[in-house]
Amino acid sequence: MSKQKIIVSGMRPSGRLHLGNYIGALQNWIRLQQEYRCYYFIADWHALTTGYEESAEIRENSREMLVDWLSAGLDPETSVIFRQSDILEHAELFLLLGMITPISWLERCPTFKEQLRELEGKNINTYGFLGYPALQAADILAYRADAVPVGEDQAPHLEFTREVARRFNYLYGKVFPEPETLLSKFTLVPGIDSRKMSKSYGNYIAMSATPEEVREKVHLMVTDPQRVRRHDPGRPEVCTVYRFHEIFNQPGAAGVGEECRSAGIGCVQCKGLLAEKLAAYLQPVFEKRRELEQKPEYLDEILHEGGKRAREAAQATLAAVREAMGL
Amino acid sequence: MSKQKIIVSGMRPSGRLHLGNYIGALQNWIRLQQEYRCYYFIADWHALTTGYEESAEIRENSREMLVDWLSAGLDPETSVIFRQSDILEHAELFLLLGMITPISWLERCPTFKEQLRELEGKNINTYGFLGYPALQAADILAYRADAVPVGEDQAPHLEFTREVARRFNYLYGKVFPEPETLLSKFTLVPGIDSRKMSKSYGNYIAMSATPEEVREKVHLMVTDPQRVRRHDPGRPEVCTVYRFHEIFNQPGAAGVGEECRSAGIGCVQCKGLLAEKLAAYLQPVFEKRRELEQKPEYLDEILHEGGKRAREAAQATLAAVREAMGL
Repeated sequence: MSKQKIIVSGMRPSGRLHLGNYIGALQNWIRLQQEYRCYYFIADWHALTTGYEESAEIRENSREMLVDWLSAGLDPETSVIFRQSDILEHAELFLLLGMITPISWLERCPTFKEQLRELEGKNINTYGFLGYPALQAADILAYRADAVPVGEDQAPHLEFTREVARRFNYLYGKVFPEPETLLSKFTLVPGIDSRKMSKSYGNYIAMSATPEEVREKVHLMVTDPQRVRRHDPGRPEVCTVYRFHEIFNQPGAAGVGEECRSAGIGCVQCKGLLAEKLAAYLQPVFEKRRELEQKPEYLDEILHEGGKRAREAAQATLAAVREAMGL
Repeated sequence: MSKQKIIVSGMRPSGRLHLGNYIGALQNWIRLQQEYRCYYFIADWHALTTGYEESAEIRENSREMLVDWLSAGLDPETSVIFRQSDILEHAELFLLLGMITPISWLERCPTFKEQLRELEGKNINTYGFLGYPALQAADILAYRADAVPVGEDQAPHLEFTREVARRFNYLYGKVFPEPETLLSKFTLVPGIDSRKMSKSYGNYIAMSATPEEVREKVHLMVTDPQRVRRHDPGRPEVCTVYRFHEIFNQPGAAGVGEECRSAGIGCVQCKGLLAEKLAAYLQPVFEKRRELEQKPEYLDEILHEGGKRAREAAQATLAAVREAMGL
């Protein structure tokens, strides 16, 4: 049997994940576990690039995110689950790759100027923020990843990693494969206000929401604004509630759509039905979380074990890197 | 007894040191050993900031420099002697400090634009080169140094380190002392062509030179250009040979000066005398080097032991740093 291909991916610790994270990146990660050797990490150093002023939350946020990962079905036996800041080799490789990275490569990364503008009040024009694509490259190359699962908007970042890998190999001899893009089609979950679901918009549903919380959030969802009275026919194609039915209520969604169009059901009833389906969908996650919350030492153990496995792999890579560079 | 104050200092591995290094920085280091707890390191990562394309030489250069350190009298029992790249905590702290370092602070470091100009052909407009004051700050703060010995031209760098320490303490609580400047008056040794002694000018005398090499180099030294014939009186104040007499031939120098002014001795004789004095001055260094070259495993042991002691101190600092930041 040929060696399993390696993939690496991380998430910034943002606390409890929401349905958008779950249906998008996380379920994709869980699927990939079957086929690849996966290194999944809590990107706590990355959180500092834009959030160094709120760093006190990082530890708790990391923990909450880890619980969500496990609740969703990420398997610490199959995958290597670890915290970035536990593996100092990421910092070492970041430093070494920085030495061969022209500043212009970093400045031309599309997110750099974009985020500088967006987060204007936040003083993020720092050395660390400028260097974050190099840190990302180090995260990936430390495990000599064959591929990286990315959403379409992240493709330029991986191109940066490939460029840095090529430059290193050119200067010092071949150490790194150029990781391929594993383009993943994510289902996009809207927020309850129909914009993109996002923590910063406050329009999200946590994947660990209780049935009551689910009901409350669904109750607040925007519907077709032209459907004012109960007997007005609705337009499911513009209704956020209907979009949720499509994602979480299959095969029932089509029937709900017809009932809406014919004013067979009202919005209140339609929301009640969705809340029920959604709560049922999240039930196993919710229960797994409750179970995990009872054993905090198990979480430490996972990070400890994952850290050990990650460190071993990263140390082997860094030994090859130092050898190639003559250090 | 109060705790010994801590100082930290490093040198880039440039291979065998020359007399300028020896009489300047190195003898100063040796003196400081009496009074301070000293961390002296081989700055091999720093060598990459301007020399990443010639990295293959770093290992050998580090070794040669270490031999010179020990030959000159640096004491591995008293001082902690180690290699920067052996202590990953320097890279970790560099990364963390980078997160809070505005890019503008780095761009305004005087050496940044100066060196960009000077080394124009070398492609050093890299992320690592821009960040080298932050790496230097990490080197110093990793040991919570009380002071740093600096030549007058390096004072701005230490100011940068102090600013970063202040910013960290302000954001996360006090972890770092602001290291003081330990301004050292170095004796400046000219090169044999009267310019500053420097490897890149090729005008140096190695501190490990054999008596023959010393004689050859002294023979090439420039003297008073107006003293053309043996019986012309000389002007010691413009003569490089005389400057060397002042440094290495005491109390004999004054007499040599008078003999020169009165044409009592000729340049050839004067150089012969200097070569003798200089060779005698370097004799113990030369012998110690020969001794050390016989036991390469002793050098490894020193770096291993020094690395252990350095790591212990740096790990304690980094634990405090992570705690303060909430990682």
